[in-house]
Amino acid sequence: MAMFDKKNIIKKSENFPEWYTDVILKSELADYAPVKGCMVIRPYGFALWESIQSFLDKLIKEKGVKNAYFPIFIPEKFLQLEKEHVEGFAPNLAVVTIAGGEELKEKLIVRPTSETVMYAMYKKWTQSWRDLPILINQWNNVVRWEKRTYLFLRTSEFLWQEGHCVHATHKENLEMVNWALDAYEKTYNDLMALYGIPGVKSEAEKFPGGNQTLSYEILMPDGKALQSCTSHDLGQNFAKAFDWTVLDKNGQKLYPWQNSWGLSTRSIGGLVMAHGDDQGLVLPPAIAPVQIVIVPITQNPAIAKFCADLQKDLKMENLRVEVDVREEKSAGWKFNEWELKGVPLRLEIGPKEIDSGELTVFRRDEKSKSKIPPPAGGLNVKKIIKDLLEEIQINMFKRHKKFTEENTHDVNSYTEFKEIMETKRGFIRAFWCEGPDCERKIKEETKASTRVLPQGAKEEKGTCIYCQKPALHRWFFAQAY
Amino acid sequence: MAMFDKKNIIKKSENFPEWYTDVILKSELADYAPVKGCMVIRPYGFALWESIQSFLDKLIKEKGVKNAYFPIFIPEKFLQLEKEHVEGFAPNLAVVTIAGGEELKEKLIVRPTSETVMYAMYKKWTQSWRDLPILINQWNNVVRWEKRTYLFLRTSEFLWQEGHCVHATHKENLEMVNWALDAYEKTYNDLMALYGIPGVKSEAEKFPGGNQTLSYEILMPDGKALQSCTSHDLGQNFAKAFDWTVLDKNGQKLYPWQNSWGLSTRSIGGLVMAHGDDQGLVLPPAIAPVQIVIVPITQNPAIAKFCADLQKDLKMENLRVEVDVREEKSAGWKFNEWELKGVPLRLEIGPKEIDSGELTVFRRDEKSKSKIPPPAGGLNVKKIIKDLLEEIQINMFKRHKKFTEENTHDVNSYTEFKEIMETKRGFIRAFWCEGPDCERKIKEETKASTRVLPQGAKEEKGTCIYCQKPALHRWFFAQAY
Repeated sequence: MAMFDKKNIIKKSENFPEWYTDVILKSELADYAPVKGCMVIRPYGFALWESIQSFLDKLIKEKGVKNAYFPIFIPEKFLQLEKEHVEGFAPNLAVVTIAGGEELKEKLIVRPTSETVMYAMYKKWTQSWRDLPILINQWNNVVRWEKRTYLFLRTSEFLWQEGHCVHATHKENLEMVNWALDAYEKTYNDLMALYGIPGVKSEAEKFPGGNQTLSYEILMPDGKALQSCTSHDLGQNFAKAFDWTVLDKNGQKLYPWQNSWGLSTRSIGGLVMAHGDDQGLVLPPAIAPVQIVIVPITQNPAIAKFCADLQKDLKMENLRVEVDVREEKSAGWKFNEWELKGVPLRLEIGPKEIDSGELTVFRRDEKSKSKIPPPAGGLNVKKIIKDLLEEIQINMFKRHKKFTEENTHDVNSYTEFKEIMETKRGFIRAFWCEGPDCERKIKEETKASTRVLPQGAKEEKGTCIYCQKPALHRWFFAQAY
Repeated sequence: MAMFDKKNIIKKSENFPEWYTDVILKSELADYAPVKGCMVIRPYGFALWESIQSFLDKLIKEKGVKNAYFPIFIPEKFLQLEKEHVEGFAPNLAVVTIAGGEELKEKLIVRPTSETVMYAMYKKWTQSWRDLPILINQWNNVVRWEKRTYLFLRTSEFLWQEGHCVHATHKENLEMVNWALDAYEKTYNDLMALYGIPGVKSEAEKFPGGNQTLSYEILMPDGKALQSCTSHDLGQNFAKAFDWTVLDKNGQKLYPWQNSWGLSTRSIGGLVMAHGDDQGLVLPPAIAPVQIVIVPITQNPAIAKFCADLQKDLKMENLRVEVDVREEKSAGWKFNEWELKGVPLRLEIGPKEIDSGELTVFRRDEKSKSKIPPPAGGLNVKKIIKDLLEEIQINMFKRHKKFTEENTHDVNSYTEFKEIMETKRGFIRAFWCEGPDCERKIKEETKASTRVLPQGAKEEKGTCIYCQKPALHRWFFAQAY
């Protein structure tokens, strides 16, 4: 099956970055592709993405946003229409210059994001305020060239959804920008058991071509932050760049307001990092492709039948259950493999369990065993298993929230700021004057950038951690992926 | 909303090719993209693709095939490993030569299909027969360069699924090849109400690099055939090209057997062509994004409430129902619009309907009205609507099957063959010696190519329609899209 010994993965507690790559490769979430900077998402990893898609797509559709598909190629001149936009993406573009055996007269960019090609079409489709809002999303692949692959977190090609909505007023536009961030927060919290900080990006960290960017920042175990999604208020910038107006209710020309928002396969990297342990992945039940694995301790027809019946019972409850029937592997080897794969619950079935009707259940998140009293296989086991899965989901979210809170430091001196960033890292809450110079210097000196001004932050009286000038808010700072 | 008058589409009965483009643009299924050869799939068209995905993905998963994702870029040298394969695709490749601001040392091909990059990974993941079968599918975009766009049917980029499974024996491989064709046939029959001919392609028409290709050929109203999907037995060709072996049960080297199978957004083109009429689209209820539209004849609060309640009732039955509440449009305009969009059923609600409790329902497939007796809005209406939708689905399939049968001609002389292809076209069943010269000459002289040798065709004694030499089977011939 594999060229490596699955029983020995690098320990998270000893070498975090190497553990991360090791656990992804060995749990078969993904692999390096033969193309520089690219990865292959294997079935076990893709099942996670399918869960995310299904959860988020439901929220998107409930909001009235519809899916569509726009071409992967963008004419070079389109990208150049919005100055900040092209400057932001230029270093990472992949360019098609030959097609159908001929040199192209106009080069085509493989989309890094689809604002320009979508708005060119939107312009064609609209004449008046009656044609607004436009509520469109697409699930697709985009390319931003990278020389080095960091599985899930940094790849030349990645999968995502990009929502692009257009409204007649700035107010409606902002409502949608906030809705998207809420939908992402819900996806992280309820599906992936990840806690984070929602807020507004600084000018320097916002989307090229937009007015304002919101993001959800999630703290990783090494104290670095992951920007886990973004939602942009693009203002009227692209409408102006495309000279796109519609008639408003009074027959006057109106530049439509745009927003865009995306969540990508990067999210899976955060999921792996935040929850995994020395034994491998630890998956929250809501997203786990396999929620329960049944492992026969010995192989005989009675045990096989018991396992199959139990699987059937649990499947009837819409649970995702596998029986590991492989004959060539020992029970111990299987325990190890399914722990590596992060399956939330394991039921071990031997002659003792069949005789007594009492089952042993192993919980991956706590690495603890407990007993399910008889009658096993009946209503009892279903109820207990479902309760356990729910408990694990909540437990994992709480644990990550607690970790984040314990590693969020209110800091009032730059000396302390530097010391924290040199040692334990984590989030720092510090006053900042919102001047780009201080932000740049802090980043140069500590590698920590502004992450967000948290949603709902109250105005306070403080002084900038760097320049001591008056500052109104504590921003979140962290080193970032 | 639109720059054209929706009430006047070109008539299918008068100009079939122009009608096809017109109905797609005006019903807002799709639009031309600003990139040559590419199209934009608009929300109404994409909803059809989502239905197809959801129907087919369920069958794929039930078969134990799992989804994954492989990179869009293929190193040029990979494609060249299989000679027939690269020759087949070379004229249609799009090539990335610049990325990240630099000229690439090795050019990257935007995938026209993923055999090569997938098998390179499969080779890395397998060592023995225990690692087989590999059952993987991916839903993605591929690029085969075209200079002229024919919406849905011929575009430089299209969406599809490509299943790529690998087995230890040829027998298992063939079983999967046949399974895929059956799954496609089911999707066409049950979801899209399209009838077709499943069978084997000739040597000249098969997939470049494969041993044998199956396809499902669907007859269009102009008498031309649409190759609606393909399923390929690739033999061991790619395994040999990639020097990929695994150890069999006896420790001997074994070249794995491969198959690949795909269905694309082209299917939507067939759906539109086959069922549409002079008024626009006619969508089978199973795939229709909107199955029932409720149109208020006059606008007042009582009618609005009645419509909303009716929608709620029908939605409870998992039906897809819209109420057209637009105030600026007349009822007549709305009738026209929803007929253009092919919605299977329309309920017209005015004061008369509210008073009498008797509803009027319009059937798109037959363009006929009938009455639903009171009490409307109760159990009665739900049952009648559901039965009607089922009846329409069956009726549309039967109609297309009848059309296909009536336009399938058993032909025994080449004179008659030519005459049919010059006039009414359709499928021709004719004996063919299976010689490539006869096939090529028939195509040159009549534009008709061999479509398939139908599944389960019995051996007969006949003479080739072209050369008069002995022939064993009647093949299906047609001009093709």
